[in-house]
Amino acid sequence: MKLLMDRIRTSGQVEKGNILKVDSFLNHQIDVALLEEIGKELKRQFSDREITKILTIESSGIAIACIAARYFHCPVVFAKKSKSLNIAGDVYTARVESFTHKTTNDIVVSRKFLLPEDKILIIDDFLANGKAILGLSDLVRQAGATLVGAGVVIEKGFQDGGKRIRELGIDLHSLAIVESMDPDTGIVFRSEN
Amino acid sequence: MKLLMDRIRTSGQVEKGNILKVDSFLNHQIDVALLEEIGKELKRQFSDREITKILTIESSGIAIACIAARYFHCPVVFAKKSKSLNIAGDVYTARVESFTHKTTNDIVVSRKFLLPEDKILIIDDFLANGKAILGLSDLVRQAGATLVGAGVVIEKGFQDGGKRIRELGIDLHSLAIVESMDPDTGIVFRSEN
Repeated sequence: MKLLMDRIRTSGQVEKGNILKVDSFLNHQIDVALLEEIGKELKRQFSDREITKILTIESSGIAIACIAARYFHCPVVFAKKSKSLNIAGDVYTARVESFTHKTTNDIVVSRKFLLPEDKILIIDDFLANGKAILGLSDLVRQAGATLVGAGVVIEKGFQDGGKRIRELGIDLHSLAIVESMDPDTGIVFRSEN
Repeated sequence: MKLLMDRIRTSGQVEKGNILKVDSFLNHQIDVALLEEIGKELKRQFSDREITKILTIESSGIAIACIAARYFHCPVVFAKKSKSLNIAGDVYTARVESFTHKTTNDIVVSRKFLLPEDKILIIDDFLANGKAILGLSDLVRQAGATLVGAGVVIEKGFQDGGKRIRELGIDLHSLAIVESMDPDTGIVFRSEN
């Protein structure tokens, strides 16, 4: 998605440790107009598929999932990162390690919001080691629901998450795939197919 | 907002300890179509005011803020609940106690996303003791920005947060104010003005 790659080039910051900061438009300050274009593109990628629910994970997936949901005309469910007093005990859980935050969280979704008849699209902002999407897809499996695919805004193509997820047969669409990046020389994107 | 109050009555659950669960449509599963009506109503409430940024707090404020931002044509900034490796060191912080989660968090916003020339609308899902909105308004004050007002989806009118915020002169609009609630007898809303 050219608009997105242009924006990552102009507004993203590459930092040491394979960190790509997009906090000026995607995950701290949010450019909602850009998210609308991202939502339209995700709908285009999955236009022929029936989707009853979008599943994402707090916090930075929520904005993208909600704006995208406008084009899919379905609700969003977001997995929470730790068990809160406000979630019923009857939950599906999975363990997820965050590349960015160097933490491990249990992610939690109330059973009543993932049903066997649901056809689920997973949406997230970043794909690095793939742990978040694998954790979310495990919640879908636990619910007996159908995983239609996964839509990601930025994939770090030099990490193995995308490869692992595609090898599992998950229909993964990443709107921008970073092939390599360097604080001095900048970002190279994988050619759009 | 009648649509919202009807939805709280039909889909909300009142539990002991003054907990109102709206996780089927607002803060776990999200009804994006309802959020669009909420966004339009917030825009109507602040229609005569110039707003350059919407400020909210993760996680459940993000969905509402982003859908509302479509009608305000401005970006969203969300405060994070703890300092992450991915946030620059140059931040504004405030301490916020969560009524629901019985926890205290430092909330954090990067200085570069709150500017002295900004005219800020705070948006959040719940208002109970008001600590979240007071913390967010303190971030606005630290930035030297202008606080235009605050828009809340559900105010617990029997707690003192709304009163305190109005007494401070903050222009607060709550789309549904719960006057009282009880697991057995249900919810009474404050009359719409």
